[in-house]
Amino acid sequence: MRKEGLCKKKLISKSPFGDGYELEYNVKDFRRIDEFINQNRGRKVVVIQGLGFVGSAMLTAVARAKNKKRLPLYAVIGVDLAKPSSYWKIGMINDGKLPVKCSDISLYRSFKKSFKSGNIMATADAYAYSIADIVLVSINLDVKKGNNVLRKGKKVFTDRFNLALRGMAKYIKPSCLIIVESTLPPGTCEKVLLPRIKTEFRKRGYKSSEIKLAYSYERVMPGENYLKSVISYYRIFSAINDKSKKEARKFLESIIDTNSYPLTELSDVTAAEIGKVLENSYRATNIAFIQEWTRLAELAGVNLFEVIDGIRKRHTHRNIMFPGFGVGGYCLTKDPILAEWGNKEIFNSNDRLNMTVGAVEINDKMPLHSFALLRKYLKKLNKRKILIMGVSYLNDIADTRFSPSKFFYKICKKRGSYVMFHDPIVTYWPELGVDVNNDLERVRVEKVDAIVLAVRHSEYIHMTVRHFAKLLKPGGFILDANNIIDDRKADSLRAMGFKLIGVGKGHWNKMLKG
Amino acid sequence: MRKEGLCKKKLISKSPFGDGYELEYNVKDFRRIDEFINQNRGRKVVVIQGLGFVGSAMLTAVARAKNKKRLPLYAVIGVDLAKPSSYWKIGMINDGKLPVKCSDISLYRSFKKSFKSGNIMATADAYAYSIADIVLVSINLDVKKGNNVLRKGKKVFTDRFNLALRGMAKYIKPSCLIIVESTLPPGTCEKVLLPRIKTEFRKRGYKSSEIKLAYSYERVMPGENYLKSVISYYRIFSAINDKSKKEARKFLESIIDTNSYPLTELSDVTAAEIGKVLENSYRATNIAFIQEWTRLAELAGVNLFEVIDGIRKRHTHRNIMFPGFGVGGYCLTKDPILAEWGNKEIFNSNDRLNMTVGAVEINDKMPLHSFALLRKYLKKLNKRKILIMGVSYLNDIADTRFSPSKFFYKICKKRGSYVMFHDPIVTYWPELGVDVNNDLERVRVEKVDAIVLAVRHSEYIHMTVRHFAKLLKPGGFILDANNIIDDRKADSLRAMGFKLIGVGKGHWNKMLKG
Repeated sequence: MRKEGLCKKKLISKSPFGDGYELEYNVKDFRRIDEFINQNRGRKVVVIQGLGFVGSAMLTAVARAKNKKRLPLYAVIGVDLAKPSSYWKIGMINDGKLPVKCSDISLYRSFKKSFKSGNIMATADAYAYSIADIVLVSINLDVKKGNNVLRKGKKVFTDRFNLALRGMAKYIKPSCLIIVESTLPPGTCEKVLLPRIKTEFRKRGYKSSEIKLAYSYERVMPGENYLKSVISYYRIFSAINDKSKKEARKFLESIIDTNSYPLTELSDVTAAEIGKVLENSYRATNIAFIQEWTRLAELAGVNLFEVIDGIRKRHTHRNIMFPGFGVGGYCLTKDPILAEWGNKEIFNSNDRLNMTVGAVEINDKMPLHSFALLRKYLKKLNKRKILIMGVSYLNDIADTRFSPSKFFYKICKKRGSYVMFHDPIVTYWPELGVDVNNDLERVRVEKVDAIVLAVRHSEYIHMTVRHFAKLLKPGGFILDANNIIDDRKADSLRAMGFKLIGVGKGHWNKMLKG
Repeated sequence: MRKEGLCKKKLISKSPFGDGYELEYNVKDFRRIDEFINQNRGRKVVVIQGLGFVGSAMLTAVARAKNKKRLPLYAVIGVDLAKPSSYWKIGMINDGKLPVKCSDISLYRSFKKSFKSGNIMATADAYAYSIADIVLVSINLDVKKGNNVLRKGKKVFTDRFNLALRGMAKYIKPSCLIIVESTLPPGTCEKVLLPRIKTEFRKRGYKSSEIKLAYSYERVMPGENYLKSVISYYRIFSAINDKSKKEARKFLESIIDTNSYPLTELSDVTAAEIGKVLENSYRATNIAFIQEWTRLAELAGVNLFEVIDGIRKRHTHRNIMFPGFGVGGYCLTKDPILAEWGNKEIFNSNDRLNMTVGAVEINDKMPLHSFALLRKYLKKLNKRKILIMGVSYLNDIADTRFSPSKFFYKICKKRGSYVMFHDPIVTYWPELGVDVNNDLERVRVEKVDAIVLAVRHSEYIHMTVRHFAKLLKPGGFILDANNIIDDRKADSLRAMGFKLIGVGKGHWNKMLKG
């Protein structure tokens, strides 16, 4: 990769926000790093490896930690790769800008404040590892499902992850504490990473008993409480030995409000790894479970939302999920597969995590249900104008990763529909490489045959009957896949000649002829 | 069935508590009923159809309802069949005894008090229906899974249920409100019962528009809060028309503390039917989900209880289940199958409730996992003495219906083991037709090779290390299938030479050689 020629070309790493940063493959940043360390003398050096969604939030959370004198505790260095796809993150941080987009103002404020106080920098130079007291690993471990989400044969990219970890282990001081935060197949720390770090340590003449390795997973929630979900929430952690456990606890206590949210220390790192993938598999499975009940409710002419509202009153049933359009985001779509990968490839289990993996398959197909409903009532889709409202994977979040709207968009296009989309907060849809219309006024010029309410954005919940009516051709359809329109509004829309279809709303569908 | 000869024989209906009641097939009770009604003049007559676990509790709850003057609101008549298997319930009630065994003293007290005040009686005479203002249907709808729980081809006994309902519809006044409480396949009320009641009404010259039919499911919890789970808990109900909804609400408000637990009124009876089977299917599925993670945790040497304790701190994950020995009782084992029956047979769906039905299959097999663990570490089971501790299906409950201990008992016997069992509260095991040892002292005379802790009874949790040690041969095994023994006790027992195996306790199992 590191060809001389490429270096001479002066590549540009372009951020999704428009800025471009000149890219050097072989960054030699030690002077800048040493200067930074000099300015932060007396502070422990924390290196954040990986500057994605989680890494950036963690960088901010660590940088804002204070000692008793209200002074910064740590000198924080963000590290990512010198590649066109990632170097812009380093550039942005060094420019005093957070390389993520989210709706949490406190995260931006906190970052700016720390940046001004001088305890944040970023680099692509592995030299940073050699001066780190703590390395926090926030690299993604991706799962490739193939373009067709329904296709089997998932691949887990462990190689890139292991390479990055070994790269770090080559440089760190023997006293450095490694805290892995990435979601991993269970068994990765003990059975894969630890042996590799041991090998590196042995090569460098250190004892493998000196290794300090902990695992602690984040529970970052995108949205308005992004930073809060890191610093004011429950955390689970463990480590390979008592020394590492003690140091990891001390570090976590310095950045998290553990008075209100006490830490949970587990016996071993594998337990902590299982915790992460289990929590997300639990959610994914409960979403998949409701899907078959959605079909039954629709067939029986029943409003499943009403039923589940009633069931949720029981504290033992409060986690039961509602019907919906689909499942997206970075966690629920892949963590169950990571779990099965660990089960099969690391622990060589003869038993499959059938329900867990099956849940992802059901959830991946979920938008097909909305599509089938649309086709059933619209009769033909060819040349029909369809407006998808909501392209993010979650309500009131500008995050489109693995958004079910993408799948839905593609199948409608394939059937010859003219598909438009709108989102109140997503301005750019990187997975499709297109700008997103934020202004419904623009749709009104050409009225559509059908609206698909794909995401439960607040703006959509507050839309009036007249707002919807303006978007539709006479007699047009509204497919509500997320309980956005209540029965009163539905009655009014029906009185105006529009037709309403609902996921999990059998009481609506039975008024229509299939 | 009603052979003359049988009547002459004077059959005895024997209760599980020892009392025998002389049985008449063609009970003519109208004189006694009329007398009862005379004594209860001014009170609405409520007939409870079916005097099982739920019916008996409902009978008590309705009988204790008071008007503003603190006088009983209702005259309550319990009705069951004149068959040897059920007639004893009628006999017991008329003797002033509640025909169920449970640990809720307030239920017995409440029943006794009402019985003394004279507003409770029971009969097998269908004449009772003809004077009822309200009939509360509490008949079981059973599912036959076959003797081998693993065998496919489940049968739902709808015929008996429909027959009982039609029997009632033949006699009731047209103004009578029918409230069905039984757990039913979704669609039963509207698609099966209502047409049959209509037929009966037409035959008798009543308009079918006069029919008042409601559905409201109970959420009775066995144990110390049996009565409270009826009168002080959330209730869902619906009915076929506004008139029935209004009257059903009024009735439910008179027996339930709806100030603290407001009623949930759903749009239609099918929604309410779905609610019941959905809540129990949700629980069943979440139990089945954890089963595959139990295997992974054991393989990985992880204590899954510790992990789940940590996960449960998230309010979004509070309903995640713990590993265990198996699933029993009357609801979780059959309600998912009733759901699929309605889905397939009543609504003719092309889609199966796969996850829901699959959960029951996984749960039915659960005790096999404990059995496999025992066999793995004990090596041979033939001629081994095994003590099953706990034969009920739930902790601190004397209810053995569909208890997983039965299945476990049978497979151990099949392997040639000498199986003993103990339970602190179950005195008689009707499914096996045997008395249950309540005294561990008796076991100590012949020490066992292995203890299987099958139920999380409080008594077992409080047992000391010495208590356990007294039961076992030197070097004997303890299989803890319900997180009854903590790690401290486990260490002590191990120090005494005993071997510990745990379901979901991989950290124990890895200390043993498989």
